[in-house]
Amino acid sequence: MGFRIIQKDGNARYGILDTKSGSVETPLFLPVASQATVKTMPPDVLKKIGVNAVISNTYHLHLRPGENIIKKMGGIHKFMNFDGIIFTDSGGFQVYSLSDLKKVTEEGIEFKSHIDGKKIFFTPEKVIEIQSDIGSDVMMVLDECPPYPVTYEYAKESLNLTLKWAERSKRFFNQKFKGKRAKPLLFGIGQGSVYIDLRREGIERLKEFDFDGYAIGGLAVGEPKDYRERVVSEILPFYPEEKPRYLMGVGYPEDIFFSVKNGVDIFDCVLPTRNARTGLVFTSRGKLRIKNAKYTDDVLPLDPDCECYVCTHFTRAYIRHLFQAEEYLSLYLATYHSLFFFSRLMERIREAIREKRLEKFEKEFFSKYSIQE
Amino acid sequence: MGFRIIQKDGNARYGILDTKSGSVETPLFLPVASQATVKTMPPDVLKKIGVNAVISNTYHLHLRPGENIIKKMGGIHKFMNFDGIIFTDSGGFQVYSLSDLKKVTEEGIEFKSHIDGKKIFFTPEKVIEIQSDIGSDVMMVLDECPPYPVTYEYAKESLNLTLKWAERSKRFFNQKFKGKRAKPLLFGIGQGSVYIDLRREGIERLKEFDFDGYAIGGLAVGEPKDYRERVVSEILPFYPEEKPRYLMGVGYPEDIFFSVKNGVDIFDCVLPTRNARTGLVFTSRGKLRIKNAKYTDDVLPLDPDCECYVCTHFTRAYIRHLFQAEEYLSLYLATYHSLFFFSRLMERIREAIREKRLEKFEKEFFSKYSIQE
Repeated sequence: MGFRIIQKDGNARYGILDTKSGSVETPLFLPVASQATVKTMPPDVLKKIGVNAVISNTYHLHLRPGENIIKKMGGIHKFMNFDGIIFTDSGGFQVYSLSDLKKVTEEGIEFKSHIDGKKIFFTPEKVIEIQSDIGSDVMMVLDECPPYPVTYEYAKESLNLTLKWAERSKRFFNQKFKGKRAKPLLFGIGQGSVYIDLRREGIERLKEFDFDGYAIGGLAVGEPKDYRERVVSEILPFYPEEKPRYLMGVGYPEDIFFSVKNGVDIFDCVLPTRNARTGLVFTSRGKLRIKNAKYTDDVLPLDPDCECYVCTHFTRAYIRHLFQAEEYLSLYLATYHSLFFFSRLMERIREAIREKRLEKFEKEFFSKYSIQE
Repeated sequence: MGFRIIQKDGNARYGILDTKSGSVETPLFLPVASQATVKTMPPDVLKKIGVNAVISNTYHLHLRPGENIIKKMGGIHKFMNFDGIIFTDSGGFQVYSLSDLKKVTEEGIEFKSHIDGKKIFFTPEKVIEIQSDIGSDVMMVLDECPPYPVTYEYAKESLNLTLKWAERSKRFFNQKFKGKRAKPLLFGIGQGSVYIDLRREGIERLKEFDFDGYAIGGLAVGEPKDYRERVVSEILPFYPEEKPRYLMGVGYPEDIFFSVKNGVDIFDCVLPTRNARTGLVFTSRGKLRIKNAKYTDDVLPLDPDCECYVCTHFTRAYIRHLFQAEEYLSLYLATYHSLFFFSRLMERIREAIREKRLEKFEKEFFSKYSIQE
């Protein structure tokens, strides 16, 4: 288990991540399955689309249905009937963004459930336990995710806490899984907001704990795009070369190309699924708002260059009608296509890296794809 | 095109209905696809479930997206990508139940759209035109559907209007499709509330117009079950033997058995789909409310005797979790199973009639199935 880089094209890497539930190629995009389902998608369809890995969420699953239920059901793979690879986010980000009355101490985070107001206490050790009960293939450590913007002083203090928690996480993980055969991977998360020296200090410390992979956390929280790009391009050289690098919460095709070229291996984002449910889908020509009146009698598919089930069987006119009529099938069809689009994009990026023509593929892709809506 | 009775078992009939879009076996249950979609179900899944015929709706489709759009898209079969048989209800029932400010005259019905308040005027001829533009395989005539309860006098007057409209419908249909090869079927609708003599008078008059099939309308509108059963059992002997008989808006498995034994061939009902979306599913043991707390950690499938995709891949615990978490996939999985249950039930009823053992099958079915929840 671990990570193998098979081919490089500049700083971009084609690799294979081996986990207890099988192997998956990188660069990899993880659709989000926070509540043990990729919204609207049955798992047999996910496999048909080419989705071999998803990311679920410790915070959400702990609140509902509770890790004890998932464990009793034989783990999350059996529970949601998905035999691919399942990452789990630690829930740190969700505690900050969804829950009330957070109290952060060196010991952990106290917060109130956004569902029933129940008080909950997360420690680095506790979230490893929860992810273990869930049956995660790739666990994330508990971190503190500062908002944007944040002062240098706050970012530094927060980073120190994140690093202490990272160390405790790794120690606890090593004890818990010592000698176990099918053990999950554990990824550390780099923080430091937009301050490059803090991020560099953070990753240097994290490396000492020898994680199975390293994430860039705390981005895609509202910072300007050029700040995000600066962080990605300037901090990645300090990330361990031989370990997988995971840019959390990103993103758009243009972000993915930029980051892959800088050496990122893994992404996750709600974009394809959440946007699809509002009628905004990704196509080879760029984003398309299917609710737009001009599609009322459009006989074309969402994306004329796409070979997915939705694009080979339905017109824009029909899908627009379903959105106008508030039919559930609209959400299914739009999500299906957008996930297929991302899945196919990552496949073509991997192919391009293997054949050392990523720059050429990027140009080809953006010669058709328009970033403006 | 038309109807062939292949086998009888008592008054129950196994038959084949031939339409311009192919043939389908009866007794037949039509899932409801009012807005050109069976709610939550992609059409490839419908076919997998064994659904070969659905009923859509003139009222809904006229309001949205409009029959002109559907016609431009090549008809409803292409529009919703369903190559089975598509019935369309005339919309009479929906005008009464959904719209405001109805004004019924001998000429037709004026009403306001429940979507945007727009004034619309339906005549018997107009709804034939709309259904023709939609591309319906089996059209229903415009009728007046009186509520329950209603006085004898009102029911009689209303029936007379319905009969006048039926005559105009058939005349217009004959002119419109004269000499055409691929013509739809047109069904008349018997009314008369719970008054058997009115219903008998109605069906005798309808027969004169020589429809392709005859519906029993105006039931399942709140009347007691024994009234409904009395109407069905007492009026069916007056329905033409050689033509298909369609009991609209029914129903529960117990209603289906009762009606099939009295000679009904076709049913439609929102029950399997609408109830599924509230978490109430049909199983071989009876109805099951999956949101019930007792299913929190239940490893069984919705129906242990069912071989559908949902029952062979998911636990009650998972589906309950999806309902609790308000995940869209809950609606899909519950609908999938309930439609499969109805589809399989009708298949077994047809088998039983062919083998002249319907009574035996009914006993066997109810030895497991409990009507109480």
